[in-house]
Amino acid sequence: MAVQAVERAVSADRPFGPAVALSCRECGERFALGPVFACTSCFGPLEVAYELPAGDPEGLRRRIESGPANLWRYAPLLPVPAGVAAEPNLEPGFTRLVRADRLARELGVTGGLFVKDDSGNPTHSFKDRVVAVAVEAARAFGFTTLSCSSTGNLAGAVGAAAARAGLRSCVFIPHDLEAGKVVMAAVYGGDLVGIEGTYDDVNRFCSELIGDPAGEGWGFVNVNLRPYYGEGSKTLAYEICEQLGWRLPDQLVVPVASGSQLTKIDKGLRELVALGLVEDRPYRIFGAQAAGCAPVARAFKDGHDVVRPVRPDTIAKSLAIGNPADGPYVLDIARRTGGAVEDVTDEEVVDGIRLLARTEGIFAETAGGVTVGVTRKLLELGLLDPSLTTVVLNTGDGLKTLDAVSAGPRAVIRPSVAAFRAAGLG
Amino acid sequence: MAVQAVERAVSADRPFGPAVALSCRECGERFALGPVFACTSCFGPLEVAYELPAGDPEGLRRRIESGPANLWRYAPLLPVPAGVAAEPNLEPGFTRLVRADRLARELGVTGGLFVKDDSGNPTHSFKDRVVAVAVEAARAFGFTTLSCSSTGNLAGAVGAAAARAGLRSCVFIPHDLEAGKVVMAAVYGGDLVGIEGTYDDVNRFCSELIGDPAGEGWGFVNVNLRPYYGEGSKTLAYEICEQLGWRLPDQLVVPVASGSQLTKIDKGLRELVALGLVEDRPYRIFGAQAAGCAPVARAFKDGHDVVRPVRPDTIAKSLAIGNPADGPYVLDIARRTGGAVEDVTDEEVVDGIRLLARTEGIFAETAGGVTVGVTRKLLELGLLDPSLTTVVLNTGDGLKTLDAVSAGPRAVIRPSVAAFRAAGLG
Repeated sequence: MAVQAVERAVSADRPFGPAVALSCRECGERFALGPVFACTSCFGPLEVAYELPAGDPEGLRRRIESGPANLWRYAPLLPVPAGVAAEPNLEPGFTRLVRADRLARELGVTGGLFVKDDSGNPTHSFKDRVVAVAVEAARAFGFTTLSCSSTGNLAGAVGAAAARAGLRSCVFIPHDLEAGKVVMAAVYGGDLVGIEGTYDDVNRFCSELIGDPAGEGWGFVNVNLRPYYGEGSKTLAYEICEQLGWRLPDQLVVPVASGSQLTKIDKGLRELVALGLVEDRPYRIFGAQAAGCAPVARAFKDGHDVVRPVRPDTIAKSLAIGNPADGPYVLDIARRTGGAVEDVTDEEVVDGIRLLARTEGIFAETAGGVTVGVTRKLLELGLLDPSLTTVVLNTGDGLKTLDAVSAGPRAVIRPSVAAFRAAGLG
Repeated sequence: MAVQAVERAVSADRPFGPAVALSCRECGERFALGPVFACTSCFGPLEVAYELPAGDPEGLRRRIESGPANLWRYAPLLPVPAGVAAEPNLEPGFTRLVRADRLARELGVTGGLFVKDDSGNPTHSFKDRVVAVAVEAARAFGFTTLSCSSTGNLAGAVGAAAARAGLRSCVFIPHDLEAGKVVMAAVYGGDLVGIEGTYDDVNRFCSELIGDPAGEGWGFVNVNLRPYYGEGSKTLAYEICEQLGWRLPDQLVVPVASGSQLTKIDKGLRELVALGLVEDRPYRIFGAQAAGCAPVARAFKDGHDVVRPVRPDTIAKSLAIGNPADGPYVLDIARRTGGAVEDVTDEEVVDGIRLLARTEGIFAETAGGVTVGVTRKLLELGLLDPSLTTVVLNTGDGLKTLDAVSAGPRAVIRPSVAAFRAAGLG
């Protein structure tokens, strides 16, 4: 697993494209590209290191722009083979960046407000991005079973991607998930197992299983494939910049569950700067949590570097990770970029969902209610600058968290104009 | 309303682009472009007549290919202004055409099987296409309230599109719709009214309302805006051909509710031939219904030209139109092209949903279960040729018809490997 083995891993067909090694986020030690996720020296998390195609930004930009209308247009910047788009996959990504003028007026944003709407992905959450990259790693390592611990969205994404790729799947979820997410996780025909406990219990169980013969040869997308998986989130950053006309946004509001997505968005933005694809200028990244599971926001506001785990209690179940693995990195990035980490109550989450639906016709999952709610709060607190270009992420779909929103007919009437008038509607 | 008024309607800014008139499908009489839907002479349905940009197929193809990745790339072939893409709208269309090799193997199709997956639209059904075109007509006619009768998907599409466009909405649904569709129809903040009755009752009520002062100035997308609305379905035909490399498919399997979609797909295919964008060769169009609401399939199999209304009783509620307005045209097209109209039981609908999910990772609405089920049945009956290129439409999303599919965890266990083994999973 030492760096000497790297040469072998990146052989002629380059299953990992421009990726050349795994590197420890804490101590920097490098490892060969393999199904490993923790540094053997310091136990720090591993991430993918690249030799990116520098030196010809115009050529790279043209290559990306002539690529497919999905995340594989960024294959030159991901740990995937060059021919990845031709393999059976769900083709996620390149979702809409919606210019949200009506929402902007309600919030008082004058510098341009955009919603990156990842509910347009095949299973209607951003998880299709990370799973797509993890599937390529699973193929490269010869894994035939795809697995994960999930708060719901990931379970559906893994089930669907495995079905499409012809892999077996076995996914683990907390036993009390929303009905929509449970059906969506099960319908693709893989094995679905409910775990009596929170997401953090499910996660610990998967770590146990991976060291046991029962889990041998399994690719856990967010455990032993986590370094590859996480890279999928970089494509959110790439797309936002490309869709803004190859320009960095000034401010981004990103939901925080494990924190991985936010850190990879930052990584993606820095790569675009390094490659000369966007002009280098300051940007601020803001993290958004639900008050019922806000360990990172708590640490940020208390000025701590350590994130103290909490027991989640919020309707925003897709963000209900009480012990977020990348929490400290989120704190680093928010502080380094001049951002913040803030949280909103469940009531504010629902208000956020309704506000986004009413103004822009986008029906967001609770996680989208969190980012919209936090955006409003950050503006009220004076932490977000309303005169700057701001991008708010919606990472999931309202149809999966229907219970959070009670909405129904104004009236039920007989089919006649007389009844219509009698009900005070005419 | 006579043809002389046409000149005025298509003035300098051409709000209806290449459309020049409405024309009666039965007697051919032409009318000015207005919010009307029935011929004053023979009561036949009106449809949009064009002066399409003929004579330069290569130029038109390039213009389309360099357009946006949504249905507005086909603006030169739709009754919309040239600058339509710049107006706030949901940007539906250009959804995935999925090469479904695993499904093909299960069904024994060797000539290439594709699924056109319209669950990728903003509100996750093909209705976003038709509503997008209707909204442009509403804008052109100065309507500020958007309305419709709906089996569910349309209600959500109208609510969302109206919100995004800054229009008021008031939509009417049968009182017993699926929970997901009801919430999705209500969440955008417009008025939602439940009607005690079937979709056909709701539809009759809307026709009554449109002649009443209470409905004055309202744009009913599927009544007084129906000629424009229907044209949105042509984009399914355009996209399928473009995504096949500007080639007609040999066979299409299309769901039949009112029958409008199938007739407009045929219209779109014929336009592409007339414009020289695809080679002229035979294609067959097959209609798909649920046995619990199969008036068109019944008429087809009985050799009748008249469609006898039925009272719907099926889980495929989005297809539950017992008195389909375009039924006779569906019969014409199926017979003219060498296709057929077939139906499947609710059990076969669920099997179809599961089959598509398991093989391709696509979670379809009941309507998608109908088309997949009918595809299988048509192959068994020898009516579909397995050696030809076949496109099956999935027009909606499984998350909206969760009740149709019972799927859950294989087991619920404590978070330990021991429990995993004890449950027979390890």
